[in-house]
Amino acid sequence: MKLALLGVFAISSLPLSVAISYSESPGASPENASPIYGVTVPDGYRDWKFIAPAQEAPPLDELRALLGNDLAVEAYKKGTLPFPDGSILVKLAYKRMQSTEFAPATVPGAPTTVQVMVKDSKKYPDSHGWGFGRFVNGKPVDLAQHETCLSCHVGNVKDHDYVFTRYAP
Amino acid sequence: MKLALLGVFAISSLPLSVAISYSESPGASPENASPIYGVTVPDGYRDWKFIAPAQEAPPLDELRALLGNDLAVEAYKKGTLPFPDGSILVKLAYKRMQSTEFAPATVPGAPTTVQVMVKDSKKYPDSHGWGFGRFVNGKPVDLAQHETCLSCHVGNVKDHDYVFTRYAP
Repeated sequence: MKLALLGVFAISSLPLSVAISYSESPGASPENASPIYGVTVPDGYRDWKFIAPAQEAPPLDELRALLGNDLAVEAYKKGTLPFPDGSILVKLAYKRMQSTEFAPATVPGAPTTVQVMVKDSKKYPDSHGWGFGRFVNGKPVDLAQHETCLSCHVGNVKDHDYVFTRYAP
Repeated sequence: MKLALLGVFAISSLPLSVAISYSESPGASPENASPIYGVTVPDGYRDWKFIAPAQEAPPLDELRALLGNDLAVEAYKKGTLPFPDGSILVKLAYKRMQSTEFAPATVPGAPTTVQVMVKDSKKYPDSHGWGFGRFVNGKPVDLAQHETCLSCHVGNVKDHDYVFTRYAP
């Protein structure tokens, strides 16, 4: 009993009160879940709807695209803010690569990261309802990188429910 | 009867034997169909699956994304070449715009063109099975611009069924 209480205490002292691994993929294993948030790469995301492209300057030097699940895309189209619980956004990033077939074109090179935002206001009360995950080859990057997500989103886009990307027409 | 025969002759002498306006959208009017090919902007394309992002150098200076219907995306995933009849590809293009919220990011500005490729080997026997359409605000651009589509695709990507974009993982 004492051990159990200690366990609860340990859980409640986590930075974001996220004690149980969050999983969009039923079979996702704990080592595939992001630190702090327990977010995993959602199944089937590559076929989700397209929200917008983007480009990231060097040193990352990337082409990117944001995809969303139906709830997220519907919210974008209707201008619904905040995004409803269950919304998931997935940003795909690739190294910029000069096309060998058409001089003016830059195309996706090697994939770099997959970045996920999951809206669940009950699960993530201390991060404005958002859980974050950044993945390389399906594996989450380290704790230090995940500690930077929230402050950057809060510092720059709090008026857009902490989401940078706008829907491209 | 003589007039009817003349009509048939006139039709068969069109550059690409495309006599009847091609329409993906049942309600599309002829003035919304591209010159030469009669391609229109397909209904619902904005919700199609994402194939890849791209960037176009100045003077166009654009961010782009290619979307495809299910047939086209399935062909991409399986590496099926040539693309099967019924495949449709839609490229969305936007002016590049510096993000005001995050210095390293370039985001979509004003939309510029929507470019469509429709695979129908019976309808487009003289353009390797592809019909092309380039649209601004839903209206096709002029004949001169459409005359440039085929030669550029044939000259640069004939080994990829005349399609530039590859599927981004």
